[in-house]
Amino acid sequence: MRVSRLMLVTLRDDPAEAEITSHKLLLRAGYMRRLAPGIFAYLPLLWRVLQKVSAIVREEMAAVDALETLLPQLQPADLWRRSGRWDGYTAGEGIMFHLVDRQERSLGLGPTHEEVVTELAADLLRSYRQLPVCLYQIQTKFRDEIRPRFGLMRGREFIMKDAYSFHADEACLRRTYAAMDGAYRRIFERCGLRAVAVEADSGAIGGSASQEFMVTAEAGEDLILASPDGRYAANQERAVSLPAAAVPLEVSTCQPLATPAQTSIDELCTAHGFDPTQTLKVLLLLARFAAAPPRGVLVCLRGDQQLNDVKLANAVTARCADAGALLEIVPLLADHLWDAVPFGFLGPHLEDPALRQGEARVAAAPLLRLADPSAADLEAFVCGANRSDEHLVGARWGELCPVPEVVDLRAAQPGDRCLHDPSQRLEAARGIEVGHIFQLGRKYSEALEARFTNEAGSEEPLWMGCYGIGVSRLAQAAVEQHHDADGIRWPVAIAPYTVIIVIASSQDPVQVALAEELYERLRLGGCDVLLDDRPERAGVKFKDADLIGIPWRLVVGRGAGERKVELVDRSGDTGKRELSADAALEHLRGLPGASP
Amino acid sequence: MRVSRLMLVTLRDDPAEAEITSHKLLLRAGYMRRLAPGIFAYLPLLWRVLQKVSAIVREEMAAVDALETLLPQLQPADLWRRSGRWDGYTAGEGIMFHLVDRQERSLGLGPTHEEVVTELAADLLRSYRQLPVCLYQIQTKFRDEIRPRFGLMRGREFIMKDAYSFHADEACLRRTYAAMDGAYRRIFERCGLRAVAVEADSGAIGGSASQEFMVTAEAGEDLILASPDGRYAANQERAVSLPAAAVPLEVSTCQPLATPAQTSIDELCTAHGFDPTQTLKVLLLLARFAAAPPRGVLVCLRGDQQLNDVKLANAVTARCADAGALLEIVPLLADHLWDAVPFGFLGPHLEDPALRQGEARVAAAPLLRLADPSAADLEAFVCGANRSDEHLVGARWGELCPVPEVVDLRAAQPGDRCLHDPSQRLEAARGIEVGHIFQLGRKYSEALEARFTNEAGSEEPLWMGCYGIGVSRLAQAAVEQHHDADGIRWPVAIAPYTVIIVIASSQDPVQVALAEELYERLRLGGCDVLLDDRPERAGVKFKDADLIGIPWRLVVGRGAGERKVELVDRSGDTGKRELSADAALEHLRGLPGASP
Repeated sequence: MRVSRLMLVTLRDDPAEAEITSHKLLLRAGYMRRLAPGIFAYLPLLWRVLQKVSAIVREEMAAVDALETLLPQLQPADLWRRSGRWDGYTAGEGIMFHLVDRQERSLGLGPTHEEVVTELAADLLRSYRQLPVCLYQIQTKFRDEIRPRFGLMRGREFIMKDAYSFHADEACLRRTYAAMDGAYRRIFERCGLRAVAVEADSGAIGGSASQEFMVTAEAGEDLILASPDGRYAANQERAVSLPAAAVPLEVSTCQPLATPAQTSIDELCTAHGFDPTQTLKVLLLLARFAAAPPRGVLVCLRGDQQLNDVKLANAVTARCADAGALLEIVPLLADHLWDAVPFGFLGPHLEDPALRQGEARVAAAPLLRLADPSAADLEAFVCGANRSDEHLVGARWGELCPVPEVVDLRAAQPGDRCLHDPSQRLEAARGIEVGHIFQLGRKYSEALEARFTNEAGSEEPLWMGCYGIGVSRLAQAAVEQHHDADGIRWPVAIAPYTVIIVIASSQDPVQVALAEELYERLRLGGCDVLLDDRPERAGVKFKDADLIGIPWRLVVGRGAGERKVELVDRSGDTGKRELSADAALEHLRGLPGASP
Repeated sequence: MRVSRLMLVTLRDDPAEAEITSHKLLLRAGYMRRLAPGIFAYLPLLWRVLQKVSAIVREEMAAVDALETLLPQLQPADLWRRSGRWDGYTAGEGIMFHLVDRQERSLGLGPTHEEVVTELAADLLRSYRQLPVCLYQIQTKFRDEIRPRFGLMRGREFIMKDAYSFHADEACLRRTYAAMDGAYRRIFERCGLRAVAVEADSGAIGGSASQEFMVTAEAGEDLILASPDGRYAANQERAVSLPAAAVPLEVSTCQPLATPAQTSIDELCTAHGFDPTQTLKVLLLLARFAAAPPRGVLVCLRGDQQLNDVKLANAVTARCADAGALLEIVPLLADHLWDAVPFGFLGPHLEDPALRQGEARVAAAPLLRLADPSAADLEAFVCGANRSDEHLVGARWGELCPVPEVVDLRAAQPGDRCLHDPSQRLEAARGIEVGHIFQLGRKYSEALEARFTNEAGSEEPLWMGCYGIGVSRLAQAAVEQHHDADGIRWPVAIAPYTVIIVIASSQDPVQVALAEELYERLRLGGCDVLLDDRPERAGVKFKDADLIGIPWRLVVGRGAGERKVELVDRSGDTGKRELSADAALEHLRGLPGASP
């Protein structure tokens, strides 16, 4: 392709709309343009990158026997109501765009396809003889993000590869899950990305186990916690660890303590010399649901610990299965309550408070009471007295009140000791999630009645897995991981073109003739080659070549008369060298991705 | 691929939802399943067909220097308001799905991309040096069809190839339009389709000239009118012709005639012995607009002629440019009028009637008065007297009232004489529109201010063309054109697989071994080959092979011991023959599409 015909417009300055480097570079180098917040036109250069990524994905999906398909983007609301996700995806987080058609039927714009593919499986898969089977698609997906940003990282319209597997038993699901894990590692490696697999929260998708693949990069939105020995890595949303040992509270009886205006753990400890590990943190929250009235939640943590919102949402969802989708959990405020509650001085023995709905008192539903092990394991502790300006010192579970239900709710932190080996301490890194694989189990097949006849002749729900890769996000993650001050440095396998031939002086017929000859020979040899034939100064063309990040630059300049050219390696590994045109061709032919 | 792993479910009976053969066959043969009206899951077999069609389209687009890109499906309403099409596409025909996002901004789901691509061109194309350039994409599009039907023919979610070209002048646009015409002819030919190019109405896309490509098939929704000499073919919406000669009305003065209850041309002619060509048909209609009050339209046709709704809509739109989008044209009824009008006895000299809005009288906007040449050319005619039960005989233009504005409004009919050669008479054929190319001119670049600097250094709007192919519709059109009583007969170039090997008896290890050997050899040779390894009876497998329509069936049966196989040509051209396994491989290797 000739650069003059490429509709290429590069920008000298960083666009105001871009915050992170990869976003800036993709805009500056003419890979994309924004049409609306989180909505981008993918220009020809970016499209080539996406096609190369997709080709690698397709090869690796074929290698694990996945069949390519294409499922609808418009999805009937009824289907999502049957799986119980319509409310959560529209009214709750509300990330699903939705509309009403001319027949007044509600449709959602697919952010994911569990419902659709399970409905299809219910129709097509009847016998264990047809199993296992795995379908995948590469498709534009939609999310009405609260805050679209970072270009393709958190867009409202983006390209995903999503795969769904169906099995006769859990062991088979686990085998395919393991095969997908391998396929994903190969895909990221072949794309030239440094990616790590981490334990992950399954979120709104659900299921029993899931693993994310993170491209490590400073600009990543996710925090990864990992042990230095490489045996444990998890998204902070999911990570577990051992908290620091608590300082025992050497008090034999429970006594009240006047604590005027000491409403925070910090103030309390400073005033009375307690260690935060000796205190109990009591949080009062309100969970809202799609199909039930709101419910109060009381959470106990050890005073030095932080609440992990994701773990709490999972715990609440699991315990309120009949309430419909969990829409949100917010701090419970005085406004929500009928009676006054002494915030800042709460103890775990708080009586169930009555809620308020406008001017009405709502019959008191009992608080959902949960305690993190860090709190439940305390023998004696300092906690609020449920009276203003007063705490209790030396309170004990059983005496004060029963231990609430124990569930892991604390946020693991860098520096925490690891469960698998307490001598290892968690280290933090930032990552960009580019893949996520799930063992769904029977969540969707049970809800949508996707059943098959097993070898024994009886019917049971299908076992399912699902496996996603953010194709457009991956492309940008590659830029975030591979760039320098001058621009992008694409890994060869996903570069839009492998070689760019730059004519130093377009006025010089000798240079032009040699460049055209090399262009033609590379093209016929199957190389993805660009010819910068624009009547610009050499410096402008060199700058553009660096910015758009083509792995190899072949400069035809003053040496053209002697058939000498300059070969520049954009990765910087082998630098710049002068050689004969034929030697350059020979070199480029030997490269991966350079010839078919 | 092994059929046992293909998730293949074929149906014996025609599904109730399908009306036309191709729709029935695609469902029965396991190519797709319906999720909602006009919304289908494309199963792996269909996906392979679509990928083969897309590959041909990509090659031919590359051959005319078009660059592949991907534009957003979600499109801001503001952009469509600037081109003046938002109202027409949402409130009028209303075929654009639209929604409101969490920021309360309106977005449409792209049925087409003129606005988006023109906005992009306004940003990227600044100089004549960058021109011409052509962008295309292969993408899922959306239309909220009033009556989704015929499977992929008139779906609500479907795959299109749409291309947009930009030029410095009209001559360049015409050259690219001609090149696209050639590319389209090659695409349809390479896909194995019999397609014809016809003159077309440009509809809501607009522009100065357009041409459709029709796959001829009985089930086609479009009526094509063509001359036997091959020099003229047009969609009936657009077709022109000569009406039959009128019988002269030999009357010298205009006289009233009592015509009690004779409200139709038929009744009038039967009662008084007039020929319909001697009468004037006067139609009273009401045009509704997005940005103006409704307007009455009076249309005169010769009594034997029919109104062409598309031509009328174009004529009204052109004459009411300030009224915003034309939403609909409906018959004007007594309910719409303040004063009584003698329907059935209307003459062209009708005074402008006052319209009614609820109980209010609307200030009389003058009727838009239009006459088809068939009416305007009459010397003397019979028409209504604008009084009940009375007509005028021998009325003349000028005496009775001025001739209204003359514009082609009549529907051409099969049997009409052709303009280019009156000895030729139009013949009718039905067609499925699979492609449509347009010379847009400057309609969108003027509206969206997409300007470039020309060679003389001054700014002017870009010249544009656009070029669409219905990729998923093409796949179904191929089935409509290529099938028999047993199922589909795919053209080799777009068949999901080229060869299917059927093991007659899966119990026979000799047959299995030979089939596996042939499968492996064909696969390694790059052939798209299926192996039907299911433990079904031979007859079931033969029926399925015919139904799904794989071009070549290789049957490994009783002759396997002597390495004899049977080769069956699904097209029926060469029939069935027994030959050695090696000869069969040799034959298949030589076929188009069978090896890489």
